[in-house]
Amino acid sequence: MIVFLTDFGLSGPYLGQVQAVLARHAPGVANINLFADLPPFNARVAAYLLAAYSQEFAAGTVFLCVVDPSVGSTRRPLAVQADDRWFVGPDNGMLEIVARRAQQTQRWAITYSPSRLSASFHGRDLFAPVAAQLARGLPVPGEPLPESGVFGEAWPDDLYEIVYIDHYGNSITGVRANVLEKSARLLVKGQELAYARTFSEAAAGEPFWYENANGLVEIALKEASAACEMNLKVGVPIGLAQAD
Amino acid sequence: MIVFLTDFGLSGPYLGQVQAVLARHAPGVANINLFADLPPFNARVAAYLLAAYSQEFAAGTVFLCVVDPSVGSTRRPLAVQADDRWFVGPDNGMLEIVARRAQQTQRWAITYSPSRLSASFHGRDLFAPVAAQLARGLPVPGEPLPESGVFGEAWPDDLYEIVYIDHYGNSITGVRANVLEKSARLLVKGQELAYARTFSEAAAGEPFWYENANGLVEIALKEASAACEMNLKVGVPIGLAQAD
Amino acid sequence: MIVFLTDFGLSGPYLGQVQAVLARHAPGVANINLFADLPPFNARVAAYLLAAYSQEFAAGTVFLCVVDPSVGSTRRPLAVQADDRWFVGPDNGMLEIVARRAQQTQRWAITYSPSRLSASFHGRDLFAPVAAQLARGLPVPGEPLPESGVFGEAWPDDLYEIVYIDHYGNSITGVRANVLEKSARLLVKGQELAYARTFSEAAAGEPFWYENANGLVEIALKEASAACEMNLKVGVPIGLAQAD
Repeated sequence: MIVFLTDFGLSGPYLGQVQAVLARHAPGVANINLFADLPPFNARVAAYLLAAYSQEFAAGTVFLCVVDPSVGSTRRPLAVQADDRWFVGPDNGMLEIVARRAQQTQRWAITYSPSRLSASFHGRDLFAPVAAQLARGLPVPGEPLPESGVFGEAWPDDLYEIVYIDHYGNSITGVRANVLEKSARLLVKGQELAYARTFSEAAAGEPFWYENANGLVEIALKEASAACEMNLKVGVPIGLAQAD
Repeated sequence: MIVFLTDFGLSGPYLGQVQAVLARHAPGVANINLFADLPPFNARVAAYLLAAYSQEFAAGTVFLCVVDPSVGSTRRPLAVQADDRWFVGPDNGMLEIVARRAQQTQRWAITYSPSRLSASFHGRDLFAPVAAQLARGLPVPGEPLPESGVFGEAWPDDLYEIVYIDHYGNSITGVRANVLEKSARLLVKGQELAYARTFSEAAAGEPFWYENANGLVEIALKEASAACEMNLKVGVPIGLAQAD
Repeated sequence: MIVFLTDFGLSGPYLGQVQAVLARHAPGVANINLFADLPPFNARVAAYLLAAYSQEFAAGTVFLCVVDPSVGSTRRPLAVQADDRWFVGPDNGMLEIVARRAQQTQRWAITYSPSRLSASFHGRDLFAPVAAQLARGLPVPGEPLPESGVFGEAWPDDLYEIVYIDHYGNSITGVRANVLEKSARLLVKGQELAYARTFSEAAAGEPFWYENANGLVEIALKEASAACEMNLKVGVPIGLAQAD
């Protein structure tokens, strides 16, 4: 299975163009758009989402990871094997949190040189064909890299920020819920939020935090938009209130 | 074929996560997103859309129906066989209009207990695996239920409200066109609308009603947005003007 | 492979309904949504996008082309073979630029008469089944047409207008980049834009034009929205500044 995460957005031709390349280069392999609308140009928040949302996929899954504002520059194309999953994307940190959390990793600088390489669409021309090759079980077309000196090495283990706002206005953070006590109170835009196990247990009109279905701390409001009510955006910082 | 209807929205990871589960549990079975952006938290309007839009699908099709604001509470997961199609979703009325219009129905309370069951995402963890099982021809993992006492029993046969507004601003109602005479005039926001067979027969600038391609009464404006011009929203009531 | 271009939009049931027909009539054939959100009702801009974006697809690909505001009128359904690719859609000019640029073309008036033909959704009821037939290698269900007198014959070879605005605000024109010198300066809304090879070479805050990954002139702004900053919309005219 090939799983695609990008900031290309849902509209326009880009998703379809990438899917067509995958269908041609890895016929019969299922391909899934996981995130098509990651926050634009933001490899850092993408790194924390990728680390959380890739865990439910089976061994052998190939993640095609394209948040790539520096496309056309000299940034390197990477392939990373993290435990038993594969990750293909630019060398801008997007792949580093998932790599850091893995037991075993191996990195390659991709050396594949496609016959057509546009200046602005390496997702289609370079990363997708490489992801297709890996999904077919072929070797990485690249050269091994050392484990050190990677972009994003200094990023924190958990990101105390809003990293994604969904269709309902639920606001996902880059913090793993298992690093917090359930008694913890979040401090967001000056407001203190308590924990609730699920929406149906939360009080109407009162924002709360819960562990979302992928293990991240998420800020929500029952049958309403926490993002609208609290004016949350990607990048808004999350704090912890002092215990009484 | 598995056909998915939900209010998850197009953006974010949810559609992809469900599709990945379907691809894994029912490999080779086509899966289609029919409605990804049903009106949020509204099982009632979803019920009328499901009843109208499921009819064009072949016998054996499995509909995965997830408008589920009470996820994590004690609401029951259901499987319904209505004539020769299958419907899987929560016990909140979403499946009841299609069941009511069927010649034969059978209901089950799903008893499948997945190894991982998040508090907030039964679409992925419970309903999708069950839909996949049914699509593969396996028996319902559940217990038969009586036909009476179902949620939504008191809902009307046709819903005289706007139930969905599409990309063009065309506004779909919950009324089957074959219950109206073509001479009927609709009363919507104080305005009377006449029938037209098709867009190309309608006068520019004049809103009209027509029978849409799935048999529902729909309010439209030629090459313009009826929803914008008439300020229509989901839930706006539809009346019938008195005959002269 | 069947490739779908339409103005149906991403939301609502229409894409899924068409995909379900394709899956039923051409099982096992990959189908891709290339453009789901072409500018509404605008067959003219669609013609230039189709001509540019169809070129990367393999011989034998079938393009299902549905921008069809006159559905239900007497406009004819067409099939066009342009070199080694197939195009199916209404006789409103959408297929004419790709045909004009081909070495060899052949046109047919489709005579296929489906058992169910709604007045407003020929994309699902007529064009999709015909596209599926062609993708399976079956003959065109239609009658040959002469090459002359086609709708859109008077349209220019390149369209000096904005034809699409993407998710990032990049604004695609209907002009092929290879008809311009790299020294050309575009005149857009009174502003002169110079060429840059790629985003990473452009200066921040300064809109530029470049050759996009499908050979069209595109107006962009590094990590920002050219459409928002310059108030660009589909239809805005593009000029060429006088050389000094």
